[in-house]
Amino acid sequence: MSTPPLNELEQIVGADHVLTDADAIAPFCEDWRGRRHGLARAVVRPADVRQVAEIAAWSQRHRVPLVPQGGNTGLVFGGIPDDSGQAVVVQLGRMNRIREIDTVNAVAIVESGVVLQTLQQRARDAGLFFPVSLAAEGSCQIGGTIATNAGGTAVLRYGNMRDQVLGLEVVLPDGRVWNGLRALRKDNTGYDLKHLFIGSEGTLGIVTAAVLKLHAAPQARATALASVRDFAAALRLFQLARSRAADVLSGCECFTEDCRALVETHAPHVTQPALRGGVYVLLQLDAATPEIPLEAILESVLSEGFEQEIVEDAVIARSLAQAEQLWALRENITEAQKRAGPSFSHDVSTPISAIPAFVDRCLTALNAIDARLRPIVFGHIGDGNLHFNLLAPAGADATERHALHKQVETALYDLVEAFDGSISAEHGLGELKRDLIEIYKPPFDLELMRGVKRQFDPANLMNPGKAVRLV
Amino acid sequence: MSTPPLNELEQIVGADHVLTDADAIAPFCEDWRGRRHGLARAVVRPADVRQVAEIAAWSQRHRVPLVPQGGNTGLVFGGIPDDSGQAVVVQLGRMNRIREIDTVNAVAIVESGVVLQTLQQRARDAGLFFPVSLAAEGSCQIGGTIATNAGGTAVLRYGNMRDQVLGLEVVLPDGRVWNGLRALRKDNTGYDLKHLFIGSEGTLGIVTAAVLKLHAAPQARATALASVRDFAAALRLFQLARSRAADVLSGCECFTEDCRALVETHAPHVTQPALRGGVYVLLQLDAATPEIPLEAILESVLSEGFEQEIVEDAVIARSLAQAEQLWALRENITEAQKRAGPSFSHDVSTPISAIPAFVDRCLTALNAIDARLRPIVFGHIGDGNLHFNLLAPAGADATERHALHKQVETALYDLVEAFDGSISAEHGLGELKRDLIEIYKPPFDLELMRGVKRQFDPANLMNPGKAVRLV
Repeated sequence: MSTPPLNELEQIVGADHVLTDADAIAPFCEDWRGRRHGLARAVVRPADVRQVAEIAAWSQRHRVPLVPQGGNTGLVFGGIPDDSGQAVVVQLGRMNRIREIDTVNAVAIVESGVVLQTLQQRARDAGLFFPVSLAAEGSCQIGGTIATNAGGTAVLRYGNMRDQVLGLEVVLPDGRVWNGLRALRKDNTGYDLKHLFIGSEGTLGIVTAAVLKLHAAPQARATALASVRDFAAALRLFQLARSRAADVLSGCECFTEDCRALVETHAPHVTQPALRGGVYVLLQLDAATPEIPLEAILESVLSEGFEQEIVEDAVIARSLAQAEQLWALRENITEAQKRAGPSFSHDVSTPISAIPAFVDRCLTALNAIDARLRPIVFGHIGDGNLHFNLLAPAGADATERHALHKQVETALYDLVEAFDGSISAEHGLGELKRDLIEIYKPPFDLELMRGVKRQFDPANLMNPGKAVRLV
Repeated sequence: MSTPPLNELEQIVGADHVLTDADAIAPFCEDWRGRRHGLARAVVRPADVRQVAEIAAWSQRHRVPLVPQGGNTGLVFGGIPDDSGQAVVVQLGRMNRIREIDTVNAVAIVESGVVLQTLQQRARDAGLFFPVSLAAEGSCQIGGTIATNAGGTAVLRYGNMRDQVLGLEVVLPDGRVWNGLRALRKDNTGYDLKHLFIGSEGTLGIVTAAVLKLHAAPQARATALASVRDFAAALRLFQLARSRAADVLSGCECFTEDCRALVETHAPHVTQPALRGGVYVLLQLDAATPEIPLEAILESVLSEGFEQEIVEDAVIARSLAQAEQLWALRENITEAQKRAGPSFSHDVSTPISAIPAFVDRCLTALNAIDARLRPIVFGHIGDGNLHFNLLAPAGADATERHALHKQVETALYDLVEAFDGSISAEHGLGELKRDLIEIYKPPFDLELMRGVKRQFDPANLMNPGKAVRLV
């Protein structure tokens, strides 16, 4: 293949915004955890939708694959180039304007390069609330959260990223711009095209802007940590909270005693709670309505939990600082896991009702594979979504770990399949799970997905080889 | 075209379930309001997904168009055949099993012929709640509500039908069955195919079953009717309710004094409230959490409304019976309109913030067309969705009415377009708005929609000529 004319890209975005130097483009070619290093011809940084459209047209003319990239905080190598060295990375970070906040319609019109935390802050400044919240919020960008249909800790009440999107602006692979920036709560005029792009991991086009719903800002919060025996009890506590506090229940996270102990060892700055148990449940209630007695509601849920012998012990945060301490325990599990050494991570979901049996079966299967594996299980029990991670045996070398990981993955994902679950609940497929999905997704689903991909991107130039492989 | 072998259909579903007698099929060929009469070769009533698949395969072999039909309660002629007499109507009413209610996962797995009210009742019996609620709920079927992405009065809090769907089972035009009956809250494994079918009005396949979310059952309700000066004040009251009662606000409906007077005249059985104003706002709060003081919250919203001089008068329902009376006023507008004589109906939406200006501009434009037109404006202000209806001038004959309707439609939809709104907020396009959408939808949107239609239904046999016209 001849070298495509990168100077044409410079004419589109300006010479300063086309990076070709190996050192300069390296950070855009590897994931933030440093697990995967790809290669690219260049990184191009457009300033507006017009430039993105011209880049796409250029990519068609010269048959150069494009890799759209936001904050590069993904976990499945969906936003970085492969090893071919053919691709150009389209980095959207310069498109970071919040075009409008309409407080009456309760929407924000934002460009794809806006950092999630910036939008959260701007919504708060306007007296409203943008609910999507996740670990990477300080650097992930709106375009990426839409492309991956990001989840996080507020899905239970507010839904995934998909549920926040009223409208989209998308540059299609052929360089045409689809202006779907509608700001309507109800619109039944044909196929809802935006849902095709949401969660498609940049394989059908580049999201350049979105109309996002804003919500009433919570004015009060109540947080508690409860210890329970096991996941069956954790599920019962979630059910209790859902039935007794449905209107204000915003979060229901869980993690095992192993997770807590890991944080104690590897993140000693985190204040430890007094209680101990097999599994911990973090409950959060939020209310925008001042008359709602959040603490009383939380106490009533917990006391009913005690009465029904679901809850063994519990602590209610008496201040914002205490609430933050309880959350810090949950939020530092990933960091503690990282410090504890090599590990295997899995982001899975099942029907909520299947969680206890699923966890039991997994633990048994994993123990049979290698009793030295240390399960680090935590997640969003209210969404049926667990991060089922495992610390590799101390002393296992890379080859041994690799072999073990394959075994673990097969055992775990086979059980996910047996429980009608998902092998990627909120992280997407990217490159990492692109081949796995060929095993776990019904062939007819894959065929329909490929049909959609071919319709929108017949030349297979838009993030090729991610999410759905054209065979 | 030769006559297709209907006897093969009898082999699929049994002779009793293939209707060909003109009298027998007539009710399935006209809409429930008797405005449109189509023709069909036959009506076939399958009992299960297997039979639906065989009917679709038969339709391909013999090139016979199919028209899927649920409760036949649509308003845009989407579920009835056209004049060609070529089509076979596939009536899904026999597929009316609720396959499962999982109270822990909080989902129902239902077949498409289940009547909406039946599902609401079964959910309540299980201690849960299915929120979609609309005028036709006593006869509309789940398949139809999914195909049209039905809206109604609970969208403000719970979303449209689309937002209730976790999974779908769909028979594609070629007779293959897509089993997407997933019951997961989070699943990011490729393109979300179900959203293509939801709202596609049966043009991409026949929905045969769905996994639907259930919610915590409301335990208490508070309802009030407020009178305000105009739509600007109604919008301010909605904003106040949204910011002061966001967690429990379930409905915010509005209607004009003309609507109230129409009900008084033509539905005299409805108890009239004491208050009078230019526009009425019906507020409803619901709570599943027993500690939430709903009446106090409602009183606080209204008293703040009085203080800010938004609310002129208000009545709070002191019993369930009183609440039902207030709702009866709102719910009998359509019936009163029908009894008042010929009228023109429009189901439109704009951004919520645009409602007052939009209404003003419409009234001015309509008055200029014919000062005898009597606007009957009501709807879901919290969704930006108005039913902008007009009573035709008394004494105008059919020809005059037809000419007037064209003028009215153009004026109204041009203003919808000017306000970035939708000409079909919750009713769909069907046959009625299929040509209009060619005017009001950007050509690129139509092109993308046609591409999707061609991918799924290359022979154009699945509800052809509805929603999106292949040109």
